[in-house]
Amino acid sequence: MLKIDPERLLGDLKHLRTFGATGPGVVRLSLSPVDMTARRWLAGRMSDAGLDASIDGVGTVFGRSRNAGPALLIGSHTDTQPTGGWLDGALGVVYGLEIARGLAECDETRHFAVDVASWIDEEGTFSGFLGSRSFVGENVDEAVRGARNRDGLLLGDALEQAGLAQAARVRIDKTRHKAYLEPHIEQGGRLEAHGKSIGVVTTIVGIRELKLHFTGQRNHAGTTPMSIRRDAGAALVAFIARMDEAFRQLADADTVWTVGRIELDPGSFSVVPGAADLYLQFRDASAARLHAMEAALAALIRDFNVEGRASVVTTDSEPPEEPVTMDTALQTHLANAAEALAPGQWERMPSGASHDAQVIAHHVPACMLFVPSIGGVSHDFIEDTAEAHIVLGCEVAARAAADILRDLLSRSPR
Amino acid sequence: MLKIDPERLLGDLKHLRTFGATGPGVVRLSLSPVDMTARRWLAGRMSDAGLDASIDGVGTVFGRSRNAGPALLIGSHTDTQPTGGWLDGALGVVYGLEIARGLAECDETRHFAVDVASWIDEEGTFSGFLGSRSFVGENVDEAVRGARNRDGLLLGDALEQAGLAQAARVRIDKTRHKAYLEPHIEQGGRLEAHGKSIGVVTTIVGIRELKLHFTGQRNHAGTTPMSIRRDAGAALVAFIARMDEAFRQLADADTVWTVGRIELDPGSFSVVPGAADLYLQFRDASAARLHAMEAALAALIRDFNVEGRASVVTTDSEPPEEPVTMDTALQTHLANAAEALAPGQWERMPSGASHDAQVIAHHVPACMLFVPSIGGVSHDFIEDTAEAHIVLGCEVAARAAADILRDLLSRSPR
Repeated sequence: MLKIDPERLLGDLKHLRTFGATGPGVVRLSLSPVDMTARRWLAGRMSDAGLDASIDGVGTVFGRSRNAGPALLIGSHTDTQPTGGWLDGALGVVYGLEIARGLAECDETRHFAVDVASWIDEEGTFSGFLGSRSFVGENVDEAVRGARNRDGLLLGDALEQAGLAQAARVRIDKTRHKAYLEPHIEQGGRLEAHGKSIGVVTTIVGIRELKLHFTGQRNHAGTTPMSIRRDAGAALVAFIARMDEAFRQLADADTVWTVGRIELDPGSFSVVPGAADLYLQFRDASAARLHAMEAALAALIRDFNVEGRASVVTTDSEPPEEPVTMDTALQTHLANAAEALAPGQWERMPSGASHDAQVIAHHVPACMLFVPSIGGVSHDFIEDTAEAHIVLGCEVAARAAADILRDLLSRSPR
Repeated sequence: MLKIDPERLLGDLKHLRTFGATGPGVVRLSLSPVDMTARRWLAGRMSDAGLDASIDGVGTVFGRSRNAGPALLIGSHTDTQPTGGWLDGALGVVYGLEIARGLAECDETRHFAVDVASWIDEEGTFSGFLGSRSFVGENVDEAVRGARNRDGLLLGDALEQAGLAQAARVRIDKTRHKAYLEPHIEQGGRLEAHGKSIGVVTTIVGIRELKLHFTGQRNHAGTTPMSIRRDAGAALVAFIARMDEAFRQLADADTVWTVGRIELDPGSFSVVPGAADLYLQFRDASAARLHAMEAALAALIRDFNVEGRASVVTTDSEPPEEPVTMDTALQTHLANAAEALAPGQWERMPSGASHDAQVIAHHVPACMLFVPSIGGVSHDFIEDTAEAHIVLGCEVAARAAADILRDLLSRSPR
């Protein structure tokens, strides 16, 4: 009978936490000395679990099962934000390790193949999703040559210092890797608010990110009557109100949009702003809705410019990230396992945050499982999840993993 | 017959422009070497005009008529903003010089006393209105010891370097100084918009200046649903809309309010702002209206905090500046002179900007005369006024000065 070992699971998570521990949180930036120490420890734990473990040419820790495929790949990331929490991506990596151990200890499943990965640099210290992008075959040489961390260190030099520059880069094997599972903390407050213990992810939301630049006329704040002002800041504020109204018309309960930054020029008490910038991001699980929001925004901009008090243009747009749907068959395996172990205590939900799964899902059927974040907090030293939820999440993931592999094996040629 | 000399007036203004000339503009910051050179030249021109001229212990250039009082004091400032225009305060100082010369050249008025001042640091390079404040008897020793310019130079050290630290400070003589006239460029676009050539100032507006600090909850912009956000930036934007509405209800055509700066914390695309700051200034000629606006703002803050999504408090308020009414008898002299020389081409108006006159008006009846600013531009290199308006303004000011002095002499004990 398949079982995971809660003590071993929590023990490994807590040991991993010691690398870069800072108060209750963790600072373990990609390829930093402490991150490399953690990676070597992790590779050792994978070897102990019977996996063929290595750190690849970009820093990803990869533990390959000695069993023949089809294989389930379980992964996430062990690098952190500059002020990171102890679980974040570490949870999913250690889940993978524990599930590989659990399956190997059970007679029925000891021939099942689970490969485990800690993808390098999910957090973008140098270049976001570097490990998963390299794994699926994206050319990351430009990032290796040009990407720098906040201290100005080149990614290539960091890999050299870590002794990885000459190491092989692990690549997807589509004859072997037939499914991907990424367990993760929720990083939001939804499960907690709904009193649930497990989230089965339906979609990783798409993202639009852009700046809006408003141009008016800089003027003396004392001598310029309101009636003749062309105040770029006032225009920006009026625009936000209209945009909120337009987006509310289009939104569902999971649609989010955020004005994260506002800059008025020149930015002093006594000067009517002549220019203004608004930093806008919006996310949704529906590609159609994202396109509708873009169209609404374009219409607002058009109308605004016709009125003529101040002009507005879009600048510095990031490339659009489209929503990525999780594989429905894999979702069903997760849902079945959740219902078996925590009946009524789980729900389907989108992921509002980005994950390596969105990179890998374009190449292999992928799914994600969430456990609740206390207070919805993440990317913060105080990020945490109840131990009962950590253990339950791993049990659900293990049961789903076994089901997925059983399914894959039944459909694979003998 | 009293006449001013347009060529001499424009010649002196253009010569003064050469000190610190930068393209079409002027950079002549208080007590800088080029400012001191300009002050010495100005004192020389005052001496040439028969005035007893000196640079006082804070840097004010003061030219005292050798005639007995009652005296009309005419002044403004020759220091500039970091990117200053050539006229700004220089206009009023050279008007004073030219009027002193014009009166001395006319048999009927050669015994009239006009004292002329260029008050130091109106623009606040070290400490705003330093010269006029010192003149009316305010203790400025604290500023001399503690105020610094943008380069960190102490005012006291700047005075030492200028050789002024031991010089006497000129003081108001209430037995002599019976009226104050400050001619100035408008710095706004009202006269131009109305097709007028001369403005007679009724009031120098009062000012309120404060920051509003909003506190919400910092959160992940992807995983935090709109419904549970406590977005400090969104609260700030909503507050501005309500404030605009409330202020519009209270405003007349000359009331102005300005949001000059907005800061969201932490200020990135992916984070729901946890805190936000709004820099607010409002000005009006009516003390009652300023108080009503303050009360409306306080009520809005109260209501906002009751609703509870984000909290708002006022921080870093500047001391209130109350409106200062110009002496009505002096206004009448200006109005009569304007109507005589430019019939129908003048109007009464408030001053939206601050001036030394607001300091002096608390001690001596004061008045101000405006000439139009082309395009309403000031505190900018391209600030300018048509030569015809410069000359007309000086003619009106000279005629009014003679009328004022005639009036003062008729009322003074023989």
